[in-house]
Amino acid sequence: MFDVHVKCPDTRARRGVLTTGRGDIQTPAFMPVGTLGTVKALTPEDLKAAGASILLGNTYHLYLRPGLEVIDRFSGLHAFMHWERPILTDSGGFQVFSLAKLARITEEGVTFQSHIDGSAHHLTPEKALEIQHRLGSDIVMCLDNCVAYPAEIDTVSKGVALTTHWARRSKAAWEKTGNGALFGIVQGGVWKDLRKRSVEELAAIGFSGYAVGGLSVGEPKGALMETAAFTLERLPEDKPRYVMGVGTPEDLVELVALGADMFDCVLPTRNARNGSLFTSFGTVNICNAAHRLDTGPLDPECACYTCTHYSRAYLRHLYMAKELLAYRLNTIHNITYYLHLMQQMRSAIAQGRFMSFKKAFYHRRQL
Amino acid sequence: MFDVHVKCPDTRARRGVLTTGRGDIQTPAFMPVGTLGTVKALTPEDLKAAGASILLGNTYHLYLRPGLEVIDRFSGLHAFMHWERPILTDSGGFQVFSLAKLARITEEGVTFQSHIDGSAHHLTPEKALEIQHRLGSDIVMCLDNCVAYPAEIDTVSKGVALTTHWARRSKAAWEKTGNGALFGIVQGGVWKDLRKRSVEELAAIGFSGYAVGGLSVGEPKGALMETAAFTLERLPEDKPRYVMGVGTPEDLVELVALGADMFDCVLPTRNARNGSLFTSFGTVNICNAAHRLDTGPLDPECACYTCTHYSRAYLRHLYMAKELLAYRLNTIHNITYYLHLMQQMRSAIAQGRFMSFKKAFYHRRQL
Repeated sequence: MFDVHVKCPDTRARRGVLTTGRGDIQTPAFMPVGTLGTVKALTPEDLKAAGASILLGNTYHLYLRPGLEVIDRFSGLHAFMHWERPILTDSGGFQVFSLAKLARITEEGVTFQSHIDGSAHHLTPEKALEIQHRLGSDIVMCLDNCVAYPAEIDTVSKGVALTTHWARRSKAAWEKTGNGALFGIVQGGVWKDLRKRSVEELAAIGFSGYAVGGLSVGEPKGALMETAAFTLERLPEDKPRYVMGVGTPEDLVELVALGADMFDCVLPTRNARNGSLFTSFGTVNICNAAHRLDTGPLDPECACYTCTHYSRAYLRHLYMAKELLAYRLNTIHNITYYLHLMQQMRSAIAQGRFMSFKKAFYHRRQL
Repeated sequence: MFDVHVKCPDTRARRGVLTTGRGDIQTPAFMPVGTLGTVKALTPEDLKAAGASILLGNTYHLYLRPGLEVIDRFSGLHAFMHWERPILTDSGGFQVFSLAKLARITEEGVTFQSHIDGSAHHLTPEKALEIQHRLGSDIVMCLDNCVAYPAEIDTVSKGVALTTHWARRSKAAWEKTGNGALFGIVQGGVWKDLRKRSVEELAAIGFSGYAVGGLSVGEPKGALMETAAFTLERLPEDKPRYVMGVGTPEDLVELVALGADMFDCVLPTRNARNGSLFTSFGTVNICNAAHRLDTGPLDPECACYTCTHYSRAYLRHLYMAKELLAYRLNTIHNITYYLHLMQQMRSAIAQGRFMSFKKAFYHRRQL
């Protein structure tokens, strides 16, 4: 169930609510990435304090570690990781193509070797759904064929055809189990014709939501935005639109303006572990010597645990000394920054001032 | 100010309270080690939830990183690290002798090179006090000369003489600034004559408390316990007795029985990071395959955050996947175990049942 409450009069941005059995998700929404049953360095309590209403879990990673035999003992990922709010799981397709070894694709599915121990595995659209079902996923993604950039148009075209074929089989399999929402994934690289075809074929099958896949795979930023704009515009109005694996704060603001409702990205968590911290006034590299004696907070406008209790000098010290606490404090801040940014955008859309928000956002981020 | 409330009728164990300007410390007490201005992987809130009333800070480490120029901006370590309860700081002597390079000792003090960048530093009893004063320490330790095991009796004897000389100078310097409590440190290796002399010389100078130093430096467990017993017995009754750098849960129970009031040790935090977890029923190596499918808590009797919300299977998964959350959850548990053990000992002494507690403790730990 997805309801759009308010549309921005000046852009395609929209304010909505996505309803799941485990709670509502206010959109536009950002989903922190919990690859292996944990958002790196954080507890579920940390995530709730930061304002997270949904997490993303990685099917490929969880299937390999800890494996379904373990997850089954807990009747799913939620109890295993102590997170009772919604979880969206990807299909595993992206990791199979980007991370696994010797991936061999046929119409039937994909055979690959684990990046951990080289063990052989076979993934089909039906198997991807079964794994996500056993993970207890609230939003299930269809197995898709994600093609790296750059690629020949023929390769991308075949990828679209295979993605549609797998999407049809996914829908059929999903209709039997009926758990959670099922999202289709649009492919087509940077070719508009292919994106258009992919959108139309998926919309004809009919899904609870639609993801724009195959972005952030090496294409230039301009191509990403142009492709996203073209694709988002053509997706059904009444369903949530999810741009996968993107992006910077600026990307999120642009994509919300283009009508995107959902995002996931490792950027806030990964950058936190590298000492790169997002603030209202630009990005702070915490190891910079300028922060050595700075008794002020990382971001004076941020209400997160880190900014409330610690100084830049302390954060720099922890980071330079490679103290474990550094990773947690930095991650709490970056995730709070992302989730607060989404909250600001939701308010701005609801109050009909998204354009002025966007202008102020850019102005301050470039200070 | 130190008050002994109850003495165990069967052992030398005692239940007391040590009063500081930042709060009372119920004894026997365990002090988690916050080497670099953080107990590794934990926040102050985690430590309070675990029941910590005092932390130990390492003067040597903090002097080198972040350095006093940084600490001064916060008027001390408490504000820098967001911990308002008492802090005991060591003198730096132990690290200079064990960690620094090219330590050269004279009657005046010790010259050494930083283990981080090789920079040259000079530490005297007066300088050690000044650093601790600037750290804002609530309990200040005298610079002592800690000798490794094994060592010639002449070397140890000279160490005792130097420790007494430095203790006298420390007391004189402390009387000028007058901040915090000042503890003397007994040396003497495993030689009873030397321990006796060290105790007598320090007691003649007069301190707010006395530490048994020079243990856990390589001597056999039997020698540690015999030396501790001999030394603790001779220390002033009306002052707190602190056994430095020790030990296992069993060591703490034995030393409390011998009249020790305070402890610090990296064992609970370091072992947590190595997946070795203390429980009422013995030590659990969390990477053991036996825990793979175990949906039960690490320690069913433990009320810590980790045992309340997570299973052995999840803790094993996090640890095997080297997830950052593993270090925090494991450390929360081990520190809670240590602090809860102290709490159990305090209750048992107060209620006159320390001997039966001790017996039950050993019985269960060996299950």
